[in-house]
Amino acid sequence: MLRIALIGAGRIGQVHARSVAAHPEAQLVLVADPFLDNAQAVAAAYGARASDDVDAVFTDDEVDAVIICSPTPLHVPHILAAARAGKPALCEKPVAMETAAVENLRADLEGLDPVVMLGFNRRFDPSFRHIHDQVEAGAVGTLEQLTIISRDPAAPPKEYIAVSGGIFKDMTIHDFDMARYFLGDIVAVSAVGQNLDPELADTGDFDGVIITLINAEGHSATITNSRHCASGYDQRLEAFGTKGALFAENVRPTTVRYSTAEHTNAEDPYLDFFLQRYEAAYSAELSEFIAAITEGRRPSPDIEDGAAALRLAEAAEESARTGQVVRLN
Amino acid sequence: MLRIALIGAGRIGQVHARSVAAHPEAQLVLVADPFLDNAQAVAAAYGARASDDVDAVFTDDEVDAVIICSPTPLHVPHILAAARAGKPALCEKPVAMETAAVENLRADLEGLDPVVMLGFNRRFDPSFRHIHDQVEAGAVGTLEQLTIISRDPAAPPKEYIAVSGGIFKDMTIHDFDMARYFLGDIVAVSAVGQNLDPELADTGDFDGVIITLINAEGHSATITNSRHCASGYDQRLEAFGTKGALFAENVRPTTVRYSTAEHTNAEDPYLDFFLQRYEAAYSAELSEFIAAITEGRRPSPDIEDGAAALRLAEAAEESARTGQVVRLN
Amino acid sequence: MLRIALIGAGRIGQVHARSVAAHPEAQLVLVADPFLDNAQAVAAAYGARASDDVDAVFTDDEVDAVIICSPTPLHVPHILAAARAGKPALCEKPVAMETAAVENLRADLEGLDPVVMLGFNRRFDPSFRHIHDQVEAGAVGTLEQLTIISRDPAAPPKEYIAVSGGIFKDMTIHDFDMARYFLGDIVAVSAVGQNLDPELADTGDFDGVIITLINAEGHSATITNSRHCASGYDQRLEAFGTKGALFAENVRPTTVRYSTAEHTNAEDPYLDFFLQRYEAAYSAELSEFIAAITEGRRPSPDIEDGAAALRLAEAAEESARTGQVVRLN
Amino acid sequence: MLRIALIGAGRIGQVHARSVAAHPEAQLVLVADPFLDNAQAVAAAYGARASDDVDAVFTDDEVDAVIICSPTPLHVPHILAAARAGKPALCEKPVAMETAAVENLRADLEGLDPVVMLGFNRRFDPSFRHIHDQVEAGAVGTLEQLTIISRDPAAPPKEYIAVSGGIFKDMTIHDFDMARYFLGDIVAVSAVGQNLDPELADTGDFDGVIITLINAEGHSATITNSRHCASGYDQRLEAFGTKGALFAENVRPTTVRYSTAEHTNAEDPYLDFFLQRYEAAYSAELSEFIAAITEGRRPSPDIEDGAAALRLAEAAEESARTGQVVRLN
Repeated sequence: MLRIALIGAGRIGQVHARSVAAHPEAQLVLVADPFLDNAQAVAAAYGARASDDVDAVFTDDEVDAVIICSPTPLHVPHILAAARAGKPALCEKPVAMETAAVENLRADLEGLDPVVMLGFNRRFDPSFRHIHDQVEAGAVGTLEQLTIISRDPAAPPKEYIAVSGGIFKDMTIHDFDMARYFLGDIVAVSAVGQNLDPELADTGDFDGVIITLINAEGHSATITNSRHCASGYDQRLEAFGTKGALFAENVRPTTVRYSTAEHTNAEDPYLDFFLQRYEAAYSAELSEFIAAITEGRRPSPDIEDGAAALRLAEAAEESARTGQVVRLN
Repeated sequence: MLRIALIGAGRIGQVHARSVAAHPEAQLVLVADPFLDNAQAVAAAYGARASDDVDAVFTDDEVDAVIICSPTPLHVPHILAAARAGKPALCEKPVAMETAAVENLRADLEGLDPVVMLGFNRRFDPSFRHIHDQVEAGAVGTLEQLTIISRDPAAPPKEYIAVSGGIFKDMTIHDFDMARYFLGDIVAVSAVGQNLDPELADTGDFDGVIITLINAEGHSATITNSRHCASGYDQRLEAFGTKGALFAENVRPTTVRYSTAEHTNAEDPYLDFFLQRYEAAYSAELSEFIAAITEGRRPSPDIEDGAAALRLAEAAEESARTGQVVRLN
Repeated sequence: MLRIALIGAGRIGQVHARSVAAHPEAQLVLVADPFLDNAQAVAAAYGARASDDVDAVFTDDEVDAVIICSPTPLHVPHILAAARAGKPALCEKPVAMETAAVENLRADLEGLDPVVMLGFNRRFDPSFRHIHDQVEAGAVGTLEQLTIISRDPAAPPKEYIAVSGGIFKDMTIHDFDMARYFLGDIVAVSAVGQNLDPELADTGDFDGVIITLINAEGHSATITNSRHCASGYDQRLEAFGTKGALFAENVRPTTVRYSTAEHTNAEDPYLDFFLQRYEAAYSAELSEFIAAITEGRRPSPDIEDGAAALRLAEAAEESARTGQVVRLN
Repeated sequence: MLRIALIGAGRIGQVHARSVAAHPEAQLVLVADPFLDNAQAVAAAYGARASDDVDAVFTDDEVDAVIICSPTPLHVPHILAAARAGKPALCEKPVAMETAAVENLRADLEGLDPVVMLGFNRRFDPSFRHIHDQVEAGAVGTLEQLTIISRDPAAPPKEYIAVSGGIFKDMTIHDFDMARYFLGDIVAVSAVGQNLDPELADTGDFDGVIITLINAEGHSATITNSRHCASGYDQRLEAFGTKGALFAENVRPTTVRYSTAEHTNAEDPYLDFFLQRYEAAYSAELSEFIAAITEGRRPSPDIEDGAAALRLAEAAEESARTGQVVRLN
């Protein structure tokens, strides 16, 4: 029974708390949050201890592993603390807001050989994962063109966007990781940005982007993002290859279809909250973290995957601003 | 080039006229209808002769084959006339309104060895035919349960229903033939009738029926009919067997899907007129008639298929009225 | 926090144990099973007590409500014991194997006014429930024809079938309840049975059945059952009415579609185990049981629903054996 | 009855010949082709005259309008000849291989005010047109992101590619027109090319391309092309806007779905020949040409649409070669 501590009792922390409680081989033992009330609320629901002393978690003998759900600027120090304490860590994405910070982290971790998994949850979505594994097994021949549609139900508040690091780091980061999951290392990035929502005009950030990525073999990934989608959380993917194609359709709450004189076979709107949409993914992600620890192997994705996605976000921003393809080596 | 005469210039006759005109190996040479104006209108559109003398068609030396679209009571005399003249005939369904009439026809045709094809057009629908051929090829293993949904867009006028012979002969007759197309001879018929539309209450006819047919091997066909369907002409079929199943979805005018905040992937209503819905089927039916003549073989379906469907309609009516399974031998 | 005891630690009992453990307002406190090992295994996983003394459950002061997952012949005595102890009970279906037994139970319960919910889990499936609620809200106008397709992935062992009470009570019972959920009381039952699987020939039971039910308004429900389905657990429903129709498609593990040179948009096989297929339904059923108790109202469905489904099963068996519609009053 | 002459009796000419013959308000009177045999074969099938003197068509008093299906280099002179003769012309795309040639044509046509329609057939596809009209009617709110997937079943011979003008002019030209149909004038073009098929390596042409177009309002169109698709002719479109989205699915020969133990709901491969895929579009295109002439109005699309699509092709080629966004004014 793996004893797990949770750092950060916010929205995403609560998702992980429930997953841990439901997991047959793990136990939630400690919830730490500077806001003690929050820590206590989550801890009570699953029979764990609560604390407002985050630093003490890393030296707690009754904690075998940590899940880091602190604010992004604390990810690097918390990963480092866990590594120095020898405790495996599952850290929410992104590692950091700047590539430079990740490089410093990498230097600090040298010699520590830490077990760190990064929370790119979409790799664990049953549909995306199934397509990935089928592609690896040759189901579409050579994968030539990956098409990702990824739209949020609605834009976050302007205040959030102002500190989000921009759409590429805040939203597309998931799609960059998905592209790498399928295509491996990317060598060229071409991006176009849109400013369509007048409400968001003065954020200076794009609210729609289209990015084309190319890997060393010339295979492409095209990502289309929008900050809004009337039908809900729009998350589709098409893997097109020489022998066929695999598609992931959106997820809906029921399988109901409705026909009238006006239309036929109308389906439900898409699930419109990412925690619902990726509920199965979060649970599978935790299982991989626990399995990797138990079996003594490296979990994946890791910090290097986080660093690579961040580099793509920076390259896309540059391409969208200059109108020039950005080449990576 | 096969020279074809059309008997009856009504709605269904016009469909056949256009199919003949478009066929590379056939030519429409004569249109006969007691209402000369109707005959002339159709004949003009396709460069054929017009006549109000139907009987003369059968002795016309410039006519190689006839298509019989006269009113149902004339089907038997027209088939007989064509057979006596040695001219192949494609006759619209049903052969007659009563099994007794078909038996008299069969007696009269003895020794004539006529080429007569019956217009059960649905056997030639590309989807139903594809499923039939796949079932024959073993795609679903042993076919065990056939499920037919068949609903008209709207009920015909009460005046029509009064002389229609009843829903089983007027509407289900197509589905009985479809059941026989897949299952062969039927040995037991069980039917339940519904009287739901108050507008039709005094016709004495059912406006919804559910029929279960069983063949000698115990395989079933279930037919659900309604006189109305808000979404259009609802014509589906499912062939379920030991190794899988084949489904025919409805036909729509486009492949468009529409998503909003209320629903997603909404498709068009179904085509709502049988001549549109079965346009490809009528054309393929004519091709089979022409091919059979050209190749000197029997066309199918024939009078025996018409007689068998009629017997099933009579058995279903009896079952629905008595609440008792009717067994055929 | 409602303290719940589980009677019977078998397959379905384990499903309920997990649902209770995951429910924020309930706690699993006791697991009772004559086989102590089984009781202990389930109890340990969720921090409950284990016991092999089933009778003691009803008098246990620390138990607020019971879930009855004992073998079918014990349902009646266990419901009675719970009622006499004043403990609310959720009992797995069926109440009993014979209508006579339910009538005795009803007599014994007179004056006790017990809170008993019957585990017709399919009423709580998100898709079926959504259709039901939409139909109630008038989305299809007047519901005229309900079509239920219900097929198991594979037949149970012959030994099981021999003691199952027959396909109508063992399998169709769920569909009878679903028909009543939509149509209310049924007045006429017409059934046709099939014996297609040679392996099951000597069980004396049907392996495929088609049943047509009619309510007092003349609205129909058609049920098609098979003991096997190559593609998995086939559970569909169509509610057709004067203004439109609602369909429930099957449930699949992912939303993936696969296209090659041979076929396009191929989806996953259906989920093939009922516990997976109805996972969400079992959870929602438990929520209704807990909510009814908490809010002091009657849970639904109840014993009367169980009795009505049993009567339909007996009527269907009679109709299939005699070839005659059976009328109920 | 409009008397139409066909110039060019090749594959696409035959499609137009059949459409004219089937049209109730038009008559095919003359087929001209330098290869008299070809002209005669087509003419015979529809009762028209044949000729090997193409130039004489324009001065033929019995010809009211012409359909130009000659090789691309002859489009400009044939359009000019028709214009000078005052005969309305429907010309196959592209107008020419170079923008310069179209500008010369435009100068030569000055003052002639000719009726010239350009054969961008996809605008007349029932699904694309329906989406276009719905978008215009506000069904998706403001159209923000148009996504076009367009793949041919298989690459043409290398010899053809060598003289095709390159993938952007040969294949994407249709998609550029489709983008303009929805978005109007384009102001920025960003393109990425792929060389994936070793068979085509020495053609110097791309075999896959991804293009992003932006109009003056910042709305985007993303086009993904491939020279091959295992499942057939892959032609899809998604119009995403502030209030919803419209999708056009591929076209299949039947509505059949196939389920087995391996997969469910598998559909047919897509139609794999463009003449079949766009059969309805060619017919609707001709109807628009005839209607415009009859009603005395300008047909659309016209030469300016051809010129605009050509400019986009040239811009895309430049962007793909330089890695830089190309801006148009």
